[in-house]
Amino acid sequence: MKGVYRALKLESDGALLVLDQRILPFEEEWVRIEDAQACSEAISDMTVRGAGVIGNVAAFGVYLASRECNGELGCIKRLAKKIRESRPTAVNLMWAVDRMMDVAAASKKEERTERLKEEAIAICDEDGLASRNIGGFGADIIEGLMKNRGLTRINVLTHCNAGWLAIVDDGSALAPVYEAARRGIDIHVWVDETRPRNQGANLTAWELQKSLIPHTIIADNTGGHLMQHGMVDLCITGADRVSRNGDAANKIGTYLKALAANDNRVPFYIALPSSTFDFSVNDGIKEIPIEVRSEEEVTHIRGVDEEGLYKRVRIVPEGSAALNYGFDVTPARLITGLITERGVCTPQRESIESMFKEKL
Amino acid sequence: MKGVYRALKLESDGALLVLDQRILPFEEEWVRIEDAQACSEAISDMTVRGAGVIGNVAAFGVYLASRECNGELGCIKRLAKKIRESRPTAVNLMWAVDRMMDVAAASKKEERTERLKEEAIAICDEDGLASRNIGGFGADIIEGLMKNRGLTRINVLTHCNAGWLAIVDDGSALAPVYEAARRGIDIHVWVDETRPRNQGANLTAWELQKSLIPHTIIADNTGGHLMQHGMVDLCITGADRVSRNGDAANKIGTYLKALAANDNRVPFYIALPSSTFDFSVNDGIKEIPIEVRSEEEVTHIRGVDEEGLYKRVRIVPEGSAALNYGFDVTPARLITGLITERGVCTPQRESIESMFKEKL
Repeated sequence: MKGVYRALKLESDGALLVLDQRILPFEEEWVRIEDAQACSEAISDMTVRGAGVIGNVAAFGVYLASRECNGELGCIKRLAKKIRESRPTAVNLMWAVDRMMDVAAASKKEERTERLKEEAIAICDEDGLASRNIGGFGADIIEGLMKNRGLTRINVLTHCNAGWLAIVDDGSALAPVYEAARRGIDIHVWVDETRPRNQGANLTAWELQKSLIPHTIIADNTGGHLMQHGMVDLCITGADRVSRNGDAANKIGTYLKALAANDNRVPFYIALPSSTFDFSVNDGIKEIPIEVRSEEEVTHIRGVDEEGLYKRVRIVPEGSAALNYGFDVTPARLITGLITERGVCTPQRESIESMFKEKL
Repeated sequence: MKGVYRALKLESDGALLVLDQRILPFEEEWVRIEDAQACSEAISDMTVRGAGVIGNVAAFGVYLASRECNGELGCIKRLAKKIRESRPTAVNLMWAVDRMMDVAAASKKEERTERLKEEAIAICDEDGLASRNIGGFGADIIEGLMKNRGLTRINVLTHCNAGWLAIVDDGSALAPVYEAARRGIDIHVWVDETRPRNQGANLTAWELQKSLIPHTIIADNTGGHLMQHGMVDLCITGADRVSRNGDAANKIGTYLKALAANDNRVPFYIALPSSTFDFSVNDGIKEIPIEVRSEEEVTHIRGVDEEGLYKRVRIVPEGSAALNYGFDVTPARLITGLITERGVCTPQRESIESMFKEKL
């Protein structure tokens, strides 16, 4: 493990520091997590978000649980169950907790806490490697597309945030963008605002700014028009869970962009580490549970006023209700390909299964 | 003309009062317009918006121009030209100004101002009648659909605002909703927030609240998921310009909802008074100019803070640019039908032409 994971860091005293993603880009603040309960809360209140980082934090949460429980397995199980239930849609969360609990079960009590710490670090390291590989395969797609079409600049549209704030080290959807930039490709990113929590406008724009990658924020409504007028060469988003048949649950609104891409023959890729696959789900649309979140995420918004003060304002009339689904499922038929750390596969059961045989 | 048009009223001294739609639903304030310049500004800065109301205000603006010019035709022409150019996409604006200028040209100088006032009132009255007829035809569609599918309640999704704030008296897209409610139909409206200006969350929700019509505000990203899960029975939106072949320019994001409706076999209707047709446009996607508006509409938002104060906050990191297209064009192939004041036609050249023969 490197000394620093950018969205989370392990302190020398064993506590976890996480970057508070709720107040970015307006404030940059690290939150210290010392026990399993704080870890569950950081996931459920979205202090941390993004499929990979949720899994990483959950993994460290199981380690912290063991520390609290002095390695007593029953106690760890109870705390781990709460962590596992802190968000319903992201499969990495369940996957990471289950993997940690397998290690817990296979360890001796006196070695358990240390073994769990090593395992959480290993999960982060694997994610980092996966992210770099996704970046490489994705950048190859970008280069191929530019060559085929004779482009000197490429316009990529992304939805939500699947950069390093979501998955160490380069993210999933943004990993090909970062790798393309490293290869010297002239790249520009259309950043979907991503209502209601504005992860695009707040997190993706902030990340890209830090990396000096040219980008433009657009309302979520705009992508269809851009694609209709040839202003988008490629769409790449991340995913929170991908079913065995290639349906992809991702931030609400992804499905609408996939429809527009399909209607305008713009390639639409999902980038994901293999931990995002859920091989127990055969039909993503019918089977993946979709989280309903607080209506306040729709009715209120955070920003900075003219005096530079951080404010939360109501943006709807008092008395009107709102409904807030966090995700939607893009059917496999609208997806051009899945960019994984092992390579690119088509969103079909056979193609996915043949790439991940040992995981079935 | 009735004494009061709800989004605009003519004062006894001949000035125009318009409801300031920029600060709804947080404040209800009427702005007094006394000359042509103020009228152009009210249109361009969106104090008034909505295809019909823009046309009405523009018509009264030509009357005000005549008052200022003492009926001198050259002077009126100069002022009317500015009004005509105050927004680029809404065809009702150009249509209303041209109709007013025809009357101006056909009137004697000393009668001109009075004749223009009568004509502006006539345009409003015709819009009111058109709106009621659109409501009737639309409510028939709703009743038919409910009967066919055995529904006891109907869920309608709309985008942006095309109610009485947009077109006197009942609007276009919302006219069928209001008429259905009058007929005692159990109706619920999904209100797309409609970023970046939030006309859905701010105006449509406010209108529906005033009319006691059950409604729920959703992020623009949500409609696809709702349609995928059978939670939307029908979509109805308004339009800013419809081409001879049935392509419909409407608020940015309409195209994405039409794609989702099409993908899930949800009927998708555009409701419009015939003044919204532009028979000079043969291909909406290629020919209708799309307004690019200030990026501040994306980067900043207005709302009410916890102390009840009206605030404008920045919601993106400083230094990230935004791009703000105001409209998109939904291709005719995605539209089930056009609900006009004369009846419902299919979005095909022959069907449109046969309903509006004398306008060609």
